[in-house]
This record gives sequence, structure tokens and C-alpha cells, in this order.
Amino acid sequence: MRIYLAGPDVFLPDAVAIGRRKVEICARHGTTGLYPLDNLIDLAAPDASLQIFRGNEAMMNEADAIIANLTPFRGPGADAGTVYELGYMAGRGKNCFAYSNDPTLYVDRVREITSVTAQDGRFTDADGLTVEDFGQTDNLMMIHALDLYGAPLVVPSRKPADLWHDLAGFEACLRLATATKP
Amino acid sequence: MRIYLAGPDVFLPDAVAIGRRKVEICARHGTTGLYPLDNLIDLAAPDASLQIFRGNEAMMNEADAIIANLTPFRGPGADAGTVYELGYMAGRGKNCFAYSNDPTLYVDRVREITSVTAQDGRFTDADGLTVEDFGQTDNLMMIHALDLYGAPLVVPSRKPADLWHDLAGFEACLRLATATKP
Repeated sequence: MRIYLAGPDVFLPDAVAIGRRKVEICARHGTTGLYPLDNLIDLAAPDASLQIFRGNEAMMNEADAIIANLTPFRGPGADAGTVYELGYMAGRGKNCFAYSNDPTLYVDRVREITSVTAQDGRFTDADGLTVEDFGQTDNLMMIHALDLYGAPLVVPSRKPADLWHDLAGFEACLRLATATKP
Repeated sequence: MRIYLAGPDVFLPDAVAIGRRKVEICARHGTTGLYPLDNLIDLAAPDASLQIFRGNEAMMNEADAIIANLTPFRGPGADAGTVYELGYMAGRGKNCFAYSNDPTLYVDRVREITSVTAQDGRFTDADGLTVEDFGQTDNLMMIHALDLYGAPLVVPSRKPADLWHDLAGFEACLRLATATKP
């Protein structure tokens, strides 16, 4: 089974090393991890970002499943590139798995960046925009895509000490993925 | 042509009204707009969020194209639910269009929430994570999906006075969508 390894891990200072760890864990579980940074890209080329897109998309097309790191990234929710990829894989009918290392509910994370008030039975932020509150850690589109096309989002009971390097959630996804035949 | 109308518009205080305006504009262009809030959902039901997911997905499956509102939402980038849907539609091979009412580059929006420093030829945020900087307004996965599967992201030369209700970018997408045969 080939598994696409999506996540903001590629933005970490040790992005290559964490990818290598993930690929090794995949191998221990009898699977092949496909990590975006394993595509060879000429970052000095004028079309570097398009090369990255094409490389990632080719890897996704080749993969049987995705394991996405949905740990909140620069805001109350998951990294946009990772979310795009989860949607893409769901659209292609692939098996979808994901973890987040932050178990905080979405509405509570929004409270960290803006005031949230209850009004007419719904929560709104300082701009009057509705804050989704279904007792979930992120937007319902990702949450239910996982429920229906793979396994429910894996979250720890509490934040691990190292939010970006703790791979317990990742390995839990891998166990779920290998228990599910593609 | 049936067009799925994705965006954080559904979180606006006048979410129903803006959906109606978008559907009317679609009709004027000879197309059918499919707006998530036109699905009848019992919000008091215990599975309301799953009903919303299923309703949105059924609409996407029925649509020939998507027009996504990628205006930054609660952070430096687009709304996660909208990004998921753009990925899903790309994965299904549908035509993909989008607009953002904020022309600011992603790296400059990140500067508004954290310090950004240049280091070894790349930008990093206060946590040492890379800030993507290819001269684009958001994550490259969305930007190039649009380039390849529809038309480049539509952005105004400057932010409109009403970020959430200005539909000039939306209508520009519609013109692009109707000029492209599905």
C-alpha cells in the first residue's frame, strides 16, 4: 500500500528528517510512504511552485491512501495545502486518514484569536461571522470525509510536548490504514 | 452548466441573502448556481453536521464546476471547508474557478500575525517554520489547481470596501466558467 504523507511537516526546519522518520515508520508497517520533499525540485527555477504542485499531484495519483497532518497551522485550523490534498484524495476515491496533535475544539481555538459570542443559538466572532460549533476540532468537511472514507480524525487526549514532532497520531493512522484494505 | 458556490459566505450574518445574489448572478449568465444553504438541514438534529457534509457533497457531485471564494478567513489563508471542496472538485475532474477579494501576498499576510525573517534564502515565521513565498496570495496547491483546471485565481488590484459582499471577482469567475466548456 502506498500512502501519501500530507502535512505542514514540509515547512518544519527539519522537514527532510521528519519525512524520513515517517517513511521509515511506514516501512515498519509494510507500506510505502510517499513524502512530497522526495520529489526533486529545482527551487531556483521560475516555475518551482508549479513543479512542486505537479510532483505532489503525481504522488497523490500514485497513492492508495493519504495520511494528513491536520494539526492547526498559523490559525485556528489545518494547513490549507494539506486540506486541499485531503479533498483531492477524497475526490479521487482514495482512503483518507488524518491526525491532529491538538485536541482543542475549533470554537475554543477561535476564542484564542477573537472574541466569540453566543447569539440566537449560534456562536459569532468579532466580525459577526458564524463560528462552526458541532463539538469538532476543525471544519466539518474534513471531519466527515475522514469518518466516511477512512477513519475518524485521530486526536490525542492532550497536546503532546512537541506538537510538530510527536508521531503517535501518525502511527495510529497507519494502523488504521493497514487494517483497511484499499 | 451547474456551478457549486463554495466559500465562507455561509458564515456571514446574511448568508442566505448573499447566496441568493450569487444564484441570481449565475442565472443571468445562463448557469445554475448550487449554494450549500439551499440544502434543507435540520440543525437541531444530532447528525446535523453530517447532513451538511452529505448535502454539500451531493451538490458537488451534481455540479460541472466550482467557484470558490478564497478570501482569507480567520488567518492568513482561505477557509478550510472551501479549500477541501476545491480539492474535492479537482479530484473529481471538475472545472475549478476561484476569487479572493484580498490581493495581499501570503507572506505579507503572515507578517500581520507573526514575525517573518529571511534565513538561508527562505522566509521563516516566529516558530522557525517556512513561510511559502512564490509571489502568490495563498498556498501553491490551490493556486496551481486553478491554473491547470480552470483559470488563474481572480484577485482585485486592491481590496474592495466590503470584503465579504463585493461580488465583482465572483462575476469575473462566472465569465471565465461560461467561456470554458465543461
